[in-house]
Amino acid sequence: MSDPRPASRPSPGVDLRIQAKELDREDELAVKRAEFVLDDTVYLDGNSLGALPAHVPDRVADVINRQWGRLRIRSWGESEWWTAPERIGDRVAPLVGAAPGQIVVGDSTSVNVFKALVAAVRLVRGEGEGGGSGGEPHAERDEIIVDATTFPTDGYIAQSAARLTGCRLTPLTPAEVPAALGPRTAAVLLNHADYRTGRLHDLPGLTAAVHAAGALAVWDLCHTAGALPVGLDEHGVDLAVGCTYKYLNGGPGSPAYLYVRRELQDRFDSPLPGWNSHVEPFGMRPEFEAADGVLRGRVGTPDILSMLALEAALDVWDGVSMDAVRAKSLALTDFFLRCVAAYVPQGLVESLTPDAHAERGSQVALRCEGAGDVMKRLIERGVVGDFRAPDVLRFGFTPLYVSFADAERAARVLAEVLES
Amino acid sequence: MSDPRPASRPSPGVDLRIQAKELDREDELAVKRAEFVLDDTVYLDGNSLGALPAHVPDRVADVINRQWGRLRIRSWGESEWWTAPERIGDRVAPLVGAAPGQIVVGDSTSVNVFKALVAAVRLVRGEGEGGGSGGEPHAERDEIIVDATTFPTDGYIAQSAARLTGCRLTPLTPAEVPAALGPRTAAVLLNHADYRTGRLHDLPGLTAAVHAAGALAVWDLCHTAGALPVGLDEHGVDLAVGCTYKYLNGGPGSPAYLYVRRELQDRFDSPLPGWNSHVEPFGMRPEFEAADGVLRGRVGTPDILSMLALEAALDVWDGVSMDAVRAKSLALTDFFLRCVAAYVPQGLVESLTPDAHAERGSQVALRCEGAGDVMKRLIERGVVGDFRAPDVLRFGFTPLYVSFADAERAARVLAEVLES
Repeated sequence: MSDPRPASRPSPGVDLRIQAKELDREDELAVKRAEFVLDDTVYLDGNSLGALPAHVPDRVADVINRQWGRLRIRSWGESEWWTAPERIGDRVAPLVGAAPGQIVVGDSTSVNVFKALVAAVRLVRGEGEGGGSGGEPHAERDEIIVDATTFPTDGYIAQSAARLTGCRLTPLTPAEVPAALGPRTAAVLLNHADYRTGRLHDLPGLTAAVHAAGALAVWDLCHTAGALPVGLDEHGVDLAVGCTYKYLNGGPGSPAYLYVRRELQDRFDSPLPGWNSHVEPFGMRPEFEAADGVLRGRVGTPDILSMLALEAALDVWDGVSMDAVRAKSLALTDFFLRCVAAYVPQGLVESLTPDAHAERGSQVALRCEGAGDVMKRLIERGVVGDFRAPDVLRFGFTPLYVSFADAERAARVLAEVLES
Repeated sequence: MSDPRPASRPSPGVDLRIQAKELDREDELAVKRAEFVLDDTVYLDGNSLGALPAHVPDRVADVINRQWGRLRIRSWGESEWWTAPERIGDRVAPLVGAAPGQIVVGDSTSVNVFKALVAAVRLVRGEGEGGGSGGEPHAERDEIIVDATTFPTDGYIAQSAARLTGCRLTPLTPAEVPAALGPRTAAVLLNHADYRTGRLHDLPGLTAAVHAAGALAVWDLCHTAGALPVGLDEHGVDLAVGCTYKYLNGGPGSPAYLYVRRELQDRFDSPLPGWNSHVEPFGMRPEFEAADGVLRGRVGTPDILSMLALEAALDVWDGVSMDAVRAKSLALTDFFLRCVAAYVPQGLVESLTPDAHAERGSQVALRCEGAGDVMKRLIERGVVGDFRAPDVLRFGFTPLYVSFADAERAARVLAEVLES
């Protein structure tokens, strides 16, 4: 936070604006900004809804006019609609550190949490398809631990998964998890980053602890995929889910994804075995027989318009290194925090986001009085973040299209709003 | 089937072509055809993927360019994204005979079957939220009956619902259901029309029989919604699901819907309680508390692009009476069967579709040798139906855009292919 300014400079703002320009000039990702539809607002809500990649409208128009309108039913084959969930899964895979063949796209995050958790309990209990819970090895594992700080839907779905598999649900903060793991723990559902504070959790360490207890680790990547390296394969994560409408810019409510580690796939036993996860979907056989591999994570007919909009949106990642994204993300949040410290009078805001890089995601959360009203006024003045009750201002930093000048301006306008 | 032709007429074809023209001239729905993107093929696969309504591309372009691209996150409120599932549900409602407030759109048909069946078992057992199955009234009801002729995904999902609720699954044909119902039957999942044969099942009679046994009736409307009057409210159906990409023309893989009869809503206990079914979604409360009404059927973030494409597509139903649709549907399938009888040499095809109107949906299924190859050649010659293994040709008649001339041409080309 050292900021030695020559005495001749009139205000910290001039200096920070110059620094922002320099940082933007040196930013290797700055060229990506032109690939998005942006305007003169500072858009710091890409952690809620990513901006529109400029080429998406034409691609969707082609899907609608040519593929649906003219080819119609033939597009299931000719336009490769049928294989979209696994093909797009393979596009998401490198962004979260997964080799191909382990991700399918489809359904909502909530639905994928349900698949992952029920399947995790069955995996750890060694239940086969159609089996009950009596007599299998590890049948005594009857606890699901859920991150008490996760986005609430994960907790609601975990409660349902627990109820339907005869488990009890234990909500704990991620820090409390290692000490609580035990021989009855079946699965642990954790969020990679806290949606309110932006705190990044220790995915490698927590996954190792869960494994040491003989349980399975399920990670929610909604707030980190596309913002920083995740390393699913490297860290031995068992199952993971995430949305695609935040840092992956897939569009409002675009399909989520499910990761199933390769070694677990042949025992992955989904609670939602639809015809799309059947080994022979068009065989129309009355008995369910699961497909090989991660196709088991599919359920019903894939939602093609949204899915192919997402596929187009993922083009912006071509040639982008996630290490570069992470470096810029940290530089952006560092710089924003410096600007806030320089501009905002002491005591008006308190950062909830950890200073340590290892504990920081790609957003900054500031607690302040009247945060709901403050955010309204920020938005009126062209700085778009969001508000989380009761008192949190969230600013998401999406390294592909947010600039250091954006960060400086956001902090400056925040100071003006708080002082007015 | 009487067709008294003057001896001077050269062939049945001339006569049937004239009749087709007359029928088209008298068709009050013929004007709707101009609202769709069509070409010179005869499209008889709208029972699999409905044709593109011509105004949909512009509407989706606006959703992408303005709502997502410019308004971005503000569209959840300003563009009314958040309320789309129930708003569009209310657009589907009159098409299936439901008063408003009983349908939400979202997820796939398979996922909605899962919600409906698990909730049905809980409803009939009188289980409260979070409760187990011990000690409640009707806890002895432990059987789910599933239509053995239904589209297979319904059976796979029913098997999973049975497994997770401790029920046994009994597959039966709809005709066998009434005699099999008993004091242990919890729920019955039936398909309104057989996807292969096009046979229409007796929804009022079977629903009444299920109710008389103290069980709940869950109907799959994929093959009837938009093709004929369903009468959900009138016949006291408990729960229903359906897709929107067949007769409702919502686009490939467009979101499905769930109907929950109003009287059951306050006890509807979803196995997929996501943040979108919470009474206060943005309260971010750790404990789940279900929303009022049919919102309980929502789960995760709605898939906006696909959902608003569907909303636009539903405009074609404005001012259309489902009785008129049904009358034309029956006239079309009658006329097609007459043309087939006139053109196709005896013995080459056998209709699997019932002659009786009360037992016929809106498709004609013809069994013939080498059906897969026959369908390929039909498609090459501009008549698009589909093939269901091992030996069935399916021809779907979508009354909003299929003409009697289409029906005549399809039968004529079929005869040419079979004779060549």
